[in-house]
Amino acid sequence: MSLIVTGSVGIDTVETPDGRRADEVLGGSSIYFAAGASYFTSVRLVAAVGDDFPDHLAQKFDHFDVCTHGLEKRAGSKTFRWHGRYHENMNDRDTLQVDLNVLGEALPPVPESYRDSKYIFLANTHPAGQLALLDQFPDRKLVVADTMDLWIETERDLLLQLLQRVDGFVLNDSEAKMLTEENNVVRAADKVLAMGPTFVVVKKGEHGAILRHRDGTGALPAFPATQVVDPTGAGDSFASGMMGYLCEQDDVSVGAIKRAMAYGTVVASYTIEKFSTDRLAEIDRSHIDARLAEFTGHLHIGG
Amino acid sequence: MSLIVTGSVGIDTVETPDGRRADEVLGGSSIYFAAGASYFTSVRLVAAVGDDFPDHLAQKFDHFDVCTHGLEKRAGSKTFRWHGRYHENMNDRDTLQVDLNVLGEALPPVPESYRDSKYIFLANTHPAGQLALLDQFPDRKLVVADTMDLWIETERDLLLQLLQRVDGFVLNDSEAKMLTEENNVVRAADKVLAMGPTFVVVKKGEHGAILRHRDGTGALPAFPATQVVDPTGAGDSFASGMMGYLCEQDDVSVGAIKRAMAYGTVVASYTIEKFSTDRLAEIDRSHIDARLAEFTGHLHIGG
Repeated sequence: MSLIVTGSVGIDTVETPDGRRADEVLGGSSIYFAAGASYFTSVRLVAAVGDDFPDHLAQKFDHFDVCTHGLEKRAGSKTFRWHGRYHENMNDRDTLQVDLNVLGEALPPVPESYRDSKYIFLANTHPAGQLALLDQFPDRKLVVADTMDLWIETERDLLLQLLQRVDGFVLNDSEAKMLTEENNVVRAADKVLAMGPTFVVVKKGEHGAILRHRDGTGALPAFPATQVVDPTGAGDSFASGMMGYLCEQDDVSVGAIKRAMAYGTVVASYTIEKFSTDRLAEIDRSHIDARLAEFTGHLHIGG
Repeated sequence: MSLIVTGSVGIDTVETPDGRRADEVLGGSSIYFAAGASYFTSVRLVAAVGDDFPDHLAQKFDHFDVCTHGLEKRAGSKTFRWHGRYHENMNDRDTLQVDLNVLGEALPPVPESYRDSKYIFLANTHPAGQLALLDQFPDRKLVVADTMDLWIETERDLLLQLLQRVDGFVLNDSEAKMLTEENNVVRAADKVLAMGPTFVVVKKGEHGAILRHRDGTGALPAFPATQVVDPTGAGDSFASGMMGYLCEQDDVSVGAIKRAMAYGTVVASYTIEKFSTDRLAEIDRSHIDARLAEFTGHLHIGG
C-alpha cells in the first residue's frame, strides 16, 4: 500500500525549559510524519524547501524509507523556519519567530509515479495546498488532514471546504475548541464531525487522544513518558503511526483506527525523547511493537 | 467485605460558568465517596457535622447503603462549608469561601462495630485525623488516602508520616507536582511512590488517571463526557468506584487496581452530570456496569 504526505519541511530552532536548545535542526509536519510512518510502509513526500536547505539536513532522510522524488528544492525560495520555546509544563509553547517562506508558495507538482497513492495525509500546511493535493489521487481510499490555529483564524472558509472533502480530521484540543466555539472537547469533536468527515481525532498532547467516529468512540491516554526532551512533532508523529498502521493493514474500520491511534501514541512517545527526528532515527519497528505491547498492558482493565 | 471512609461532610454552594448554581447542597469528600462506593459494598462512615446540619440533607443518605452510626452531629459545632465557582474550562475553580468548622476538631469515636473493617479510605481531610483513624483497624487489608493542596502546604510533615503508613495514595496532578516539586507527572508519581506507599494514583480530572504501582503501570483516559454540570466530587467518586470494587472483589493486586480505576472513572462520569450526589441517587449498579462496558469498548485497541 502507498502512503503519501504533504506538509511542511522546516528548519527549526527549539528551546526547552531545562535550558537545552537545538539550533537549525530538521523539522516540519511532513518530516515528522514521514519519518514515523516509514516504520509501517513506504512513504511518498510532496513538499518544497528553498535553495538554502542544507545537505546535512537532507541526508537525514536517508535513514528512513521515504521517497523524496516529490521534494522540490526550489531555486530563489527559502525554507520554512520556526523558532519556539516551551513553557515549564512542556505542553504550551511560544513561537518566537516563524517565516513561512516557501510554504506560502504553490506546492510542487506531484510525480506521476505517486498518482496511484491510496492513503493520503495532508499534514498541517496552508489549506489551499491541502485541497489542491487531494484532487490528484483518483484511487484514494483514505484522506486525513491536520491543521493549526493559524489556518482556523485566517482561512476558515477553505478549512470548511477541506472538512467536506476528507475522511478523517486530526487536530488538537485547543484547535477543536477554537474551530467550533465549544468548550467541551467531546462536543467540539462532534461539531467537527458534523462539518463533514467520517471521523475526528482530537489530540490532547500529554493527555492522550479522543476518537469520534460515525461508528463509535475511542479514548486513549498518552504513553506515560518520564523523559520529555522536546514535544515538537509529537502530533505529526501520532498521525504517522496512525496512518502508517492503517495503510499497512489496508483497513479503515473504526476498530483499525483505534488500534492505529495506539500505534500513533507509541511513535509520538519516541519522538519526544530527543530533539528533531533524532530518536526516531535510532529505533526500528521492534521498538515500536515492544512499546505497543507495554502500552496495551497499561490499558488492560480485564473483564 | 467492609469498607470504611472518613473525610469531610459539607454544605456546598457551587457556581458553574453557564450561570447555574446550587445553594447549600450536600457535599464533602466522604459523602461523594460513600455514595459511589455503596454500589459495590456496604460503606461505613466516620465523620462529624455540626448541629446546624439540616435534616433534609441527612435524609439524602437514606438512598445509599451507607451506615451512619459513625456520623456524629456535634452540639455546639458547625458543619464544614465550601463555596466554589468553576472556570469556563470546568477543570479549574476558585474557592470563594471555605469554613473548616467541625473539620478542625477531633474525629468522632469509631463505633465498636466498625473495628473489623478491612478496606479503609481516608478521604481528603486533615492528615492528623487520617493518621488517627488508621490505627484503629487491626484487620486492615488495604489503606488508601487522598489529600489536597492545603495540607501539602500546611501539614507536609504529617502527610509524609501518612505516606509511610498507607498502601495507596491518590492525589491530583497539580498536587503531585506540588508535593514532589517535579513537573513531569509520571516522575512526580514515582517520587510519591518513593515516599512509602505501594501504589500511587494521579487523578487528572477530564484527562483521566495514571497508576504507578511497584508491580506495574496503568493509564486511563476519562470517560468522554458530553454533559458536565458540576465536577465537584469527581475525584472522590473516582476513589469510591476504585475502592468499592477492590473491596467487593477482596483483591488488591495490580490487575484488580487497574480494573478498579475503570470503575472509578465510570462512577465519576455519573457524578458530574448533576449537582451534588443527585445523579448518583438516580442510578443503580446496572448503569455502572453498562457504562463500564462502553468505556471498555473505548479503550479496546485489539491485538
